Amino acid sequence: MKKPKIVILGAGYGGLMTATKLQKALGVNEADIVLVNKNDYHYETTWLHEASAGTLHHDRVRYDIKNVLDRNKVEFVQDTVMEIKAEEKKVLLEKSELAYDYLVVALGGESETFGIKGLKEYAFSIVNVNAARRIREHIEYQFSTYHDEQDDNKLAIVVGGAGFTGIEFLGELVERIPKLCQEYDVEQSKVKIMCVEAAPTVLPGFDPELVKYAVSFLEGKGVEFKIGTAIKECAPDGIKVGKGEDEIEEIKAGTVVWAAGVRGNAVIETSGIESMRARVKVEPDLRAPGFNDIFIIGDCALVINEEINRPYPPTAQIAMQQGIAVAKNIAKLMRNQNDLEKFVPDIKGTVCSLGDHNAIGVVYGKKLVGTPASFMKKVIDNRALLMIGGISLMLKKGKFNFI
Amino acid sequence: MKKPKIVILGAGYGGLMTATKLQKALGVNEADIVLVNKNDYHYETTWLHEASAGTLHHDRVRYDIKNVLDRNKVEFVQDTVMEIKAEEKKVLLEKSELAYDYLVVALGGESETFGIKGLKEYAFSIVNVNAARRIREHIEYQFSTYHDEQDDNKLAIVVGGAGFTGIEFLGELVERIPKLCQEYDVEQSKVKIMCVEAAPTVLPGFDPELVKYAVSFLEGKGVEFKIGTAIKECAPDGIKVGKGEDEIEEIKAGTVVWAAGVRGNAVIETSGIESMRARVKVEPDLRAPGFNDIFIIGDCALVINEEINRPYPPTAQIAMQQGIAVAKNIAKLMRNQNDLEKFVPDIKGTVCSLGDHNAIGVVYGKKLVGTPASFMKKVIDNRALLMIGGISLMLKKGKFNFI
Repeated sequence: MKKPKIVILGAGYGGLMTATKLQKALGVNEADIVLVNKNDYHYETTWLHEASAGTLHHDRVRYDIKNVLDRNKVEFVQDTVMEIKAEEKKVLLEKSELAYDYLVVALGGESETFGIKGLKEYAFSIVNVNAARRIREHIEYQFSTYHDEQDDNKLAIVVGGAGFTGIEFLGELVERIPKLCQEYDVEQSKVKIMCVEAAPTVLPGFDPELVKYAVSFLEGKGVEFKIGTAIKECAPDGIKVGKGEDEIEEIKAGTVVWAAGVRGNAVIETSGIESMRARVKVEPDLRAPGFNDIFIIGDCALVINEEINRPYPPTAQIAMQQGIAVAKNIAKLMRNQNDLEKFVPDIKGTVCSLGDHNAIGVVYGKKLVGTPASFMKKVIDNRALLMIGGISLMLKKGKFNFI
Repeated sequence: MKKPKIVILGAGYGGLMTATKLQKALGVNEADIVLVNKNDYHYETTWLHEASAGTLHHDRVRYDIKNVLDRNKVEFVQDTVMEIKAEEKKVLLEKSELAYDYLVVALGGESETFGIKGLKEYAFSIVNVNAARRIREHIEYQFSTYHDEQDDNKLAIVVGGAGFTGIEFLGELVERIPKLCQEYDVEQSKVKIMCVEAAPTVLPGFDPELVKYAVSFLEGKGVEFKIGTAIKECAPDGIKVGKGEDEIEEIKAGTVVWAAGVRGNAVIETSGIESMRARVKVEPDLRAPGFNDIFIIGDCALVINEEINRPYPPTAQIAMQQGIAVAKNIAKLMRNQNDLEKFVPDIKGTVCSLGDHNAIGVVYGKKLVGTPASFMKKVIDNRALLMIGGISLMLKKGKFNFI
């Protein structure tokens, strides 16, 4: 009898969790499992702001996928997903194609620029390892030109968006800038860091007291916030923002990092599955509406928080929980049990780092700032490693600089 | 009685040697000595190719000038020299001016682009610390863009000139490239390094057997030599070279480093002292013709090697020997002894490094290659530190990775 074929697309938090849980849940003879990923490594999306600022080397934020796979049970295919043909139950990759009986779509998100002119071309987004090291090098390069060109604008950095990624990136930047100033003999007063946010507040959804703490910490380190200010256009030498009713203000900057929007993966949009900004409002068991053989998790999935009737923000925490749930549900399907589990996120906490030694957050309902929050952030970061790769991976790649 | 005022312009090998020798030779009451330099640090010009390639950090190639000065005897002024008014016996600095009784011009050289179109704008020259770290960062930045842009041309590096600096820089590059490939996940076969030289040979003036050794070593590491080939033009994306009689060949490269020409400092040219490419054919006692109170040393001085009736190439070795000679001659003038010493270079040897573990050279008339040559190169590098700053500076900044 032919074994069912399970294909997992993407080795981010959700996909890799699905694969590692399935390899434990299923016997070798129960299914063929294939994991497809563009790179041969997994990266910690939630650590990319550190690699982008240059405070943590990009090799610290990634690890070989093969290290966490049981190769007897899971086949790894390094390739890029081009198209999901849902009606034909197959996936087109760049170099080959794969038929499936069950598909797990865990392709991650993409930056959403909302059609703002020039953002795609001239702003960086903290989306993957390649982007992160390019941002790091771009900023360093601006500094390296300073002595020849004496152009303060080139040193300026604009962060678009005061959400989670924007604020965490700013936290790393204020740690990094003094080191760059020393490295390139630049006076620190020459370096401007600005955060531009269209919404009326920093970190919308966060406790206002914690937000205030974060803002005054970052302002104390020299960050200027322009809140309620929309970016209208991005150019190679800076941005234009709206000012009052009709006015436009130009802000010169050598580096613009866009950290304000996430959407699902564009592959979703040609799959025949209904979506909005490439995110699919999944069924309670995480399947795509109308497709009993397709599970969608992570940034491509939209799960409604019924308490507030708004979608949960896509986080690593939820993606991993979804991976666990999908692995269970697929194991049930393999065994012809049709009582699939309904997925409900279990939000243990949210911590937003402010550099390596400070943070704000809520953990198990308790508000934290400063060293305790920073400690918890590292515990959370290490937990992701532990959950996917076990204790050896955590010890190898974890963060233990607790003080 | 007013003390005579000795002004030394430039704290390179020649100027700093003059200052440190004068502070030993003269008593506090014999003269006022002022050393003027743009930066508060001295840098090892002969090590800049390492900082440029990124094989040695730029802080390793520089040290604080104050560390080697006796502040009771030498006043240090950090400023930029704008003009020498030889007839008025004064020097205009950016922020002030200085009158002198005796002037030592040790301002170093500049890159000579021979009017080749675009070289000044788009090619880098290994001229100082600022330039070196900019070259390093420029190359890294090209690598960091590779995964997004997949443009092999951006990885390509063209070195213009197969003289001493060009060859030494190539030696460092072939060590650095494998590390950059690893850092940015780039296949090494994608990276092209090319050396373009208008002259009919690599390292003109060097022993042909040694030249052959150097070329085959570098070729073995992937360097392509285009000898007898003149650069006609430089653009942001590469160079154009002459091919045959009238043809032009385009060579794409993300980085072009021009290492083919040195001239004296432009300040010379408005001083009223006769010069050619800002180099002054000095009198045997190192004074400028027609000016008994001005000594000129280092890259701005032209000293003829009478054995072959051609100028000595400007080297650190000669600049330091000139500094010693000038300090002696000035001490004589202070004591009204007019039998000034005639300067004759004492060439102990010349070693051209090929990375950190290989080199070619002639030392005390003996030809060396490989580890012994590389060892001698480091001895020479350390000797410069020892001669100017004594044993403590040598131990602090020297190169002791002999194997």
